[in-house]
Amino acid sequence: MLGTMLEKVRETCPLVHNITNYVTVNDCANILLACGASPIMADDEEEVCEITSLCAGLNINIGTLNSRTIASMLKAGKRANELGHPVVLDPVGAGASKLRTETALRLLDEVKFSVIRGNVSEIKTLANGSGSTKGVDADIADRVTEENLGDAVSFAKAFSAKTGSVVAMTGKIDIVADSERAYCIRNGHPMMSLVTGAGCQLSAMTAAFIAANPGNALEAAAAAVASMGLAGELAHERMTEKDGNASFRCYMIDAVCNMTPEQLEKRAVYEIR
Amino acid sequence: MLGTMLEKVRETCPLVHNITNYVTVNDCANILLACGASPIMADDEEEVCEITSLCAGLNINIGTLNSRTIASMLKAGKRANELGHPVVLDPVGAGASKLRTETALRLLDEVKFSVIRGNVSEIKTLANGSGSTKGVDADIADRVTEENLGDAVSFAKAFSAKTGSVVAMTGKIDIVADSERAYCIRNGHPMMSLVTGAGCQLSAMTAAFIAANPGNALEAAAAAVASMGLAGELAHERMTEKDGNASFRCYMIDAVCNMTPEQLEKRAVYEIR
Amino acid sequence: MLGTMLEKVRETCPLVHNITNYVTVNDCANILLACGASPIMADDEEEVCEITSLCAGLNINIGTLNSRTIASMLKAGKRANELGHPVVLDPVGAGASKLRTETALRLLDEVKFSVIRGNVSEIKTLANGSGSTKGVDADIADRVTEENLGDAVSFAKAFSAKTGSVVAMTGKIDIVADSERAYCIRNGHPMMSLVTGAGCQLSAMTAAFIAANPGNALEAAAAAVASMGLAGELAHERMTEKDGNASFRCYMIDAVCNMTPEQLEKRAVYEIR
Repeated sequence: MLGTMLEKVRETCPLVHNITNYVTVNDCANILLACGASPIMADDEEEVCEITSLCAGLNINIGTLNSRTIASMLKAGKRANELGHPVVLDPVGAGASKLRTETALRLLDEVKFSVIRGNVSEIKTLANGSGSTKGVDADIADRVTEENLGDAVSFAKAFSAKTGSVVAMTGKIDIVADSERAYCIRNGHPMMSLVTGAGCQLSAMTAAFIAANPGNALEAAAAAVASMGLAGELAHERMTEKDGNASFRCYMIDAVCNMTPEQLEKRAVYEIR
Repeated sequence: MLGTMLEKVRETCPLVHNITNYVTVNDCANILLACGASPIMADDEEEVCEITSLCAGLNINIGTLNSRTIASMLKAGKRANELGHPVVLDPVGAGASKLRTETALRLLDEVKFSVIRGNVSEIKTLANGSGSTKGVDADIADRVTEENLGDAVSFAKAFSAKTGSVVAMTGKIDIVADSERAYCIRNGHPMMSLVTGAGCQLSAMTAAFIAANPGNALEAAAAAVASMGLAGELAHERMTEKDGNASFRCYMIDAVCNMTPEQLEKRAVYEIR
Repeated sequence: MLGTMLEKVRETCPLVHNITNYVTVNDCANILLACGASPIMADDEEEVCEITSLCAGLNINIGTLNSRTIASMLKAGKRANELGHPVVLDPVGAGASKLRTETALRLLDEVKFSVIRGNVSEIKTLANGSGSTKGVDADIADRVTEENLGDAVSFAKAFSAKTGSVVAMTGKIDIVADSERAYCIRNGHPMMSLVTGAGCQLSAMTAAFIAANPGNALEAAAAAVASMGLAGELAHERMTEKDGNASFRCYMIDAVCNMTPEQLEKRAVYEIR
């Protein structure tokens, strides 16, 4: 099933509009190309509506937000909604500043998102209206473990019910949930936390997967999350003694580039709760 | 002949001012260093005239344009013209939005470009005043093939005659033309379309080549185009089973770094029409 | 001694706030992760004070400054000073434009920096109030050699005495000085000048090192400088025939990722004057 989602990306080559941060934007573009999609980045208020109209999906990432780009995010999101295009929100660092928290909440209020993809601290911030994000990483106190997995799943389902969005809460165990079902995904590798923007890349790829699989946002988002996790495993398997996080970063994108639907199907590790 | 153009870049180490997008800017800087030039990026209206005065050439790329940087592009372009410095235009995504099309046309109107470098859809948009660019990639209907090559060459020559700029229209077959002669270049590899910003990198490199070869913009631009294509071939030859587009991207820049004038001379595949 | 400085970064994982240029920002984030720190990039005036409050150190880099981000640099710097957080200044291209020179001088005037890290031309510009920077590279006339090393050391010490900042003046021989002592460091490799942003990466890493070693800015900055130089050496040792500056760039970050305190201790080449 997850393999089919990737297959559809390769078949339909969705064009994805990204309003994203300047830290990881190049990796987002390259991972979109790697998975079979096509990226376009545009953040000027004057053009975002036109650009998003050309595209099959929109990815909004607040990683280096500013007053100019916030206006563009709102405009593009609303236009994508009017057109019925899927939209992903990556609330990078929500909880770390009032501007980030309020912008994420405003986006949630004014734009309908197909998927919200963040770490546990970011998602909790959105659910509670405030949070304790440690910069752009999840707070240790928030980590999902085998012990609190049940609670985390319930939380994700409840937040999905409230927002009407699929909730992709990523960490050691990834949870991708709508109001009724949750994929608990156990792919990935600890090295991923040493690469800046693994989360940003996943959000961009999620936009491609849901654009290519209309009406199937839950499975499509789960497939994107499992693909990224598997890419981390494949990248790690390939590492030699002198490789570090920079080579690992290349290998992850390479792994997505070479990933087959069969491989994803076979190596995705998940249960549905 | 093309090899000599590269040799001159290595000898003169031209400093190139780039006003470019934040997606591929790092690759543009590194490929400039790879070919023997030196990059500087500066886009604030307050400083672009001074910065461009220090440089030997200017590269204007509208990939993530906004109102702030458009003003800087115009100012820098005019100053470079006053100083007789060569200027390259990369009209990324012209045709995809009114803002991009109009900005590109305004730049063409107010700044004299030595070279305009884009894909076929972008160049057609500039020639016709409107277009059907699919995001930042060329529309399939626009592709240059062996069948329509003659027409494409005539079109490029006519657009060069109209603008007074060398026209570098890149795709499967690259055409680099002034009003009388066109280099039809058949280097390159399909993998290049899986790397974001191969075109942006080429535009930056073109600015270096024409800066290093004054009075010879046609051959210099052709040499830059052939170098990029050859870099794609060399990068592909080096790929191993697990390499994907991320490793390929490194290998392309590496190939430019190690490219010798003799190698370019020997492996450039082109005819002049 | 220098090894201990790196060990502290690994132990304390300092969160570093970066207001930096969009050219090399991704490499800055990845090298911070490589050395054991954690990066956050935020440049909007509305949030920089809050973000810097969460962090252990601040890195201000004027590489692609503009009116919007200059205001943010000043605000964040002052807040970091109030909180007693260490702050690094990287005056990229000071001397190349009035905007850069004046911004760097204004930052020096209004913010107290723990470390100023730049090439010789940039540092001279700050000391003299004007300069002859060739773009973002040091002017040849400014280069530190064995012959003028004594003068350069005196100059660095005097500038440190004037500013109250540790001065890290990097080039073929690196000088890291306070008003009384100067580390003269002879690590590094010429290939480093073919990678855009090696200096930016060093500045980011310096912020991590001084944040992790409070009260020891001189040794901490010297350790960061030696680590970067050693990373260049290790990266070069690893190069194969087809590798160029792009692979070298990955290898440098990889080398920092795998660097042990013992390795740094053993291979750091320096004397104290």
